[in-house]
Amino acid sequence: MTVIYNRVALIGLGLIASSMYWAIKRAGLANEVVGFARSEETRQTAREIGLCDRICDTAVAAVAGADLVVLCVPVGVMGAVTAEIAPALKPGTTVSDVGSVKREVISAVTPYLPKGVHFVPAHPLAGTEHSGPRSGFAELFDNRWCLIVPVEGSDETACENVEKLWQGMGSLTERMDADHHDRVLAVTSHVPHLIAYTMVGVADDLRRVTDSEVVKYSAAGFRDFTRIAASDPTMWRDVFLSNKDATLEILGRFTEELFALQRAIRTDDGAHLHDYFTRTRAIRRGIIEAGQDTSAPDFGRGGSK
Amino acid sequence: MTVIYNRVALIGLGLIASSMYWAIKRAGLANEVVGFARSEETRQTAREIGLCDRICDTAVAAVAGADLVVLCVPVGVMGAVTAEIAPALKPGTTVSDVGSVKREVISAVTPYLPKGVHFVPAHPLAGTEHSGPRSGFAELFDNRWCLIVPVEGSDETACENVEKLWQGMGSLTERMDADHHDRVLAVTSHVPHLIAYTMVGVADDLRRVTDSEVVKYSAAGFRDFTRIAASDPTMWRDVFLSNKDATLEILGRFTEELFALQRAIRTDDGAHLHDYFTRTRAIRRGIIEAGQDTSAPDFGRGGSK
Repeated sequence: MTVIYNRVALIGLGLIASSMYWAIKRAGLANEVVGFARSEETRQTAREIGLCDRICDTAVAAVAGADLVVLCVPVGVMGAVTAEIAPALKPGTTVSDVGSVKREVISAVTPYLPKGVHFVPAHPLAGTEHSGPRSGFAELFDNRWCLIVPVEGSDETACENVEKLWQGMGSLTERMDADHHDRVLAVTSHVPHLIAYTMVGVADDLRRVTDSEVVKYSAAGFRDFTRIAASDPTMWRDVFLSNKDATLEILGRFTEELFALQRAIRTDDGAHLHDYFTRTRAIRRGIIEAGQDTSAPDFGRGGSK
Repeated sequence: MTVIYNRVALIGLGLIASSMYWAIKRAGLANEVVGFARSEETRQTAREIGLCDRICDTAVAAVAGADLVVLCVPVGVMGAVTAEIAPALKPGTTVSDVGSVKREVISAVTPYLPKGVHFVPAHPLAGTEHSGPRSGFAELFDNRWCLIVPVEGSDETACENVEKLWQGMGSLTERMDADHHDRVLAVTSHVPHLIAYTMVGVADDLRRVTDSEVVKYSAAGFRDFTRIAASDPTMWRDVFLSNKDATLEILGRFTEELFALQRAIRTDDGAHLHDYFTRTRAIRRGIIEAGQDTSAPDFGRGGSK
């Protein structure tokens, strides 16, 4: 691999940033990676585990002299963080981010960026239900998509370098328009997460089925929901609030379908149910064929402990 | 292990029955296991892969002389199958089943059972999204719960032997009343499956996001839904129709919660969202502590291919 940037600054040191650090080092994509996190405790942890070549105590110090600055903070604070670092960005620097929503991030970040600084928003579609500086690992992005969302007037060379960085970290990349990105993610990620959170909340609330029963018997299907409903609460709050329109639209469609299935159950319409359930199997096959999951039976991953 | 039954008959040869065969053999729990499937093709496959010591061409032949008969057919045909085999059951035989719903199965099966035959309903909480005679494997039930649901007047020795069989196949067992079983399963399995089916159906239906995009970018959360929405359509149609009351009740609760979250998104109530998402993390921890999943990061199980 060739070095793409002399110095990369990671602002925020959670799952994504920490995985980026290990992935950049694995492939030798930058000469130096500096990091900053707002919490003193997180900075301390990062120093302990050797996360980043250098940890700075301020965001301004971290971005000074950086050729690429990646905002790895919750979507809701992207604008405030940009306002803080803007004066310290050197001309010609590229600013990128890893937010799960793009239209709102672009609106929040763009006004603060000085002339001569390139903005190339990005979104790696990878994650686990773990968060924090200790949760990262170099393989997180391998064979996962990273969507590159150029803004109006994005510099082509700056875009290509961000693409190369992600490819170097193991990702497949694709360019996408911000509005389309937000709609695709509402379907494939945001609404599924909201539904998983809801289902887990329902189970937690019930009186006639105990919590311990829900936990003990979770392997019957419920378990798969708890995995995604254990993701970082702050990140997800910001995602829903900043991708409101697309989320509410897809939720509306979801409710419509759910009511149709509910009526089929109430009216004993077995044919409707059977047809619906048969149709959904095809999508699963497509995902396995596309290499985004395996067909290995999943029964608690007892074998991979 | 000791032999618990001289002859076991498995009626229906899908994922559960085929796994039972391999698990019974692994532990030497029966001297002979005979099998029957309604489809000629399934019987042929079973013979090819050595599933069961003997495959019979009729259900009546399969149950003749059996000490334990296990109904491994969809819930909707349990009654009809019992009517067919009833005359051939020898006195003292135990009949069990593996249906995901218990109240309706008990109502459907009991009227046909001759005096002197013991009925011990059971439900192993284990499965994968695969189905058919080739999908079984001996480890499916290891460390998974099997709920034993005695009916009024169930013979205690018959119950204990069914428990021993499941324990011998690797399961943990617990006794439960039929109505409570159906409610617990509505929460932990039936409604989660219905919701997963719905979400996958919504994605499949959208016009502005293409199918190929849904498939490509599924690792962002959607993938976990497709896994459980790929389960056997006939089985699930029957589950929903036969556990109608509990399913509709839990669905009602789910919709109520979903609408509350939807309103929080619409009204920018970040505190409500954050509180809700924080609460659901605790349940996830409980499941990991109970040994029903691992805390290993799941990123497409790329490592276990």
